Amino acid sequence: MADLVAGCVAAGVGQVGLWREQVTEYGLEKTAMLVEDAGLAVTSLCRGGFFNRDDWYDENRRAIDEAAALGAPVLVLVSGGLPAGSRDIDGARAHVGDAIGELVPHALEAGVQLAIEPLHPMFASDRCVVSSLGQALDIAAPFPPVAVGAVVDTYHVWWDDQVWAQIERAGLEGRIACFQAADWITPLPEGVLLGRGLPGEGCVELRRFREAVDAAGYTGPVEVEVFHADLWARPGAEILAATVAAYDAHVA
Amino acid sequence: MADLVAGCVAAGVGQVGLWREQVTEYGLEKTAMLVEDAGLAVTSLCRGGFFNRDDWYDENRRAIDEAAALGAPVLVLVSGGLPAGSRDIDGARAHVGDAIGELVPHALEAGVQLAIEPLHPMFASDRCVVSSLGQALDIAAPFPPVAVGAVVDTYHVWWDDQVWAQIERAGLEGRIACFQAADWITPLPEGVLLGRGLPGEGCVELRRFREAVDAAGYTGPVEVEVFHADLWARPGAEILAATVAAYDAHVA
Repeated sequence: MADLVAGCVAAGVGQVGLWREQVTEYGLEKTAMLVEDAGLAVTSLCRGGFFNRDDWYDENRRAIDEAAALGAPVLVLVSGGLPAGSRDIDGARAHVGDAIGELVPHALEAGVQLAIEPLHPMFASDRCVVSSLGQALDIAAPFPPVAVGAVVDTYHVWWDDQVWAQIERAGLEGRIACFQAADWITPLPEGVLLGRGLPGEGCVELRRFREAVDAAGYTGPVEVEVFHADLWARPGAEILAATVAAYDAHVA
Repeated sequence: MADLVAGCVAAGVGQVGLWREQVTEYGLEKTAMLVEDAGLAVTSLCRGGFFNRDDWYDENRRAIDEAAALGAPVLVLVSGGLPAGSRDIDGARAHVGDAIGELVPHALEAGVQLAIEPLHPMFASDRCVVSSLGQALDIAAPFPPVAVGAVVDTYHVWWDDQVWAQIERAGLEGRIACFQAADWITPLPEGVLLGRGLPGEGCVELRRFREAVDAAGYTGPVEVEVFHADLWARPGAEILAATVAAYDAHVA
């Protein structure tokens, strides 16, 4: 965490998205002080959700509190997959909406927007039953946009021919809570989690996406979020430099 | 091929879908005679498509002729992915429609229905830019249903919350050319091609799909199509017995 923050400051990156695991490891209050002292803004906290787990209610309330403590305006929600042994994806999706409804009062009180993240359909059974931006917006629809929005992550939605209309809809509804960029590369690795490319390495029309969220009225930060074992094996400062360069060349 | 046909006869399976590679290896006319002598019907031939390759026109005309020679009423089309280095998925999808239009006269002449198969979005860049049943039906729309239909493969479309409406639409439009069953299991293997489960091993509502295509007026065969390295390593007769049992228990 200390390296990350120092690296961002050194590289002139003024905003950063954080993950709960690393925040917890470093300490919540310590992290909040570290980023504040460095003049860094926390764009979002990843992640709440996993509504298929028994402890989802307490765990998500804690995650909301952590986001508030960090000054993060957004808590990203990855819904979780099917309960063990279940084939009821409709039921699991309905449960996501119900669960979010139960969290809305606490989110409003904390001033944290819950951001439903549709994950690529290859994660539908084991990580996230929300598989498209349209579906995320349907789930968000009953709630005020200040409480519930959606994430647009290019890696997860690039293949969807309806995504452009849904980005426009998300803008009109005031629900674009977070915009994340990563590229799609193949072959996918075993388990398919750590197979993303830096912007420009793959086939996603990243600038088209950035222009689409711009046109939809989104003025928030752009997060570059690349999971790849080879990238992660490199020194942090090198990763950050490569990320900034890729962002400048292919997203900005 | 000889083992497959003998195995089907021994198991009381009266219909089989064939793949071009194995047909070519055994010989087209020899295969046609073999299945005819055995009293087997060929349900479909896999596969034409790959419209991103330079030789797509000649290759697909050949595939249509092969389907006709085998008495297969359906040629399954896997569209192919993006051309090398391309990020233009809209362009690639438009090209699929154009290419199919050029093949329609020959398909009509040969009495073979072209069946557009949407593949799971995890294959969108490298195997098939057609990623949903709705998209396949949109591409098929300009052409007569006797010439162009769509494949419903549970493995590829199970995650899609719009698939039920699209199956109904496909039925109304007379375009369900082929129904294939396989189950979704995780973790996905590297490359994600050989990760399917036998019916019942995963989380797909297979019987709901079978009932949906029934309700949409589909009266054709059900193909069980399972790609998995461990399954393929077993003796053929054992695979066939396991497939028939899985079909009876979870699809029929």
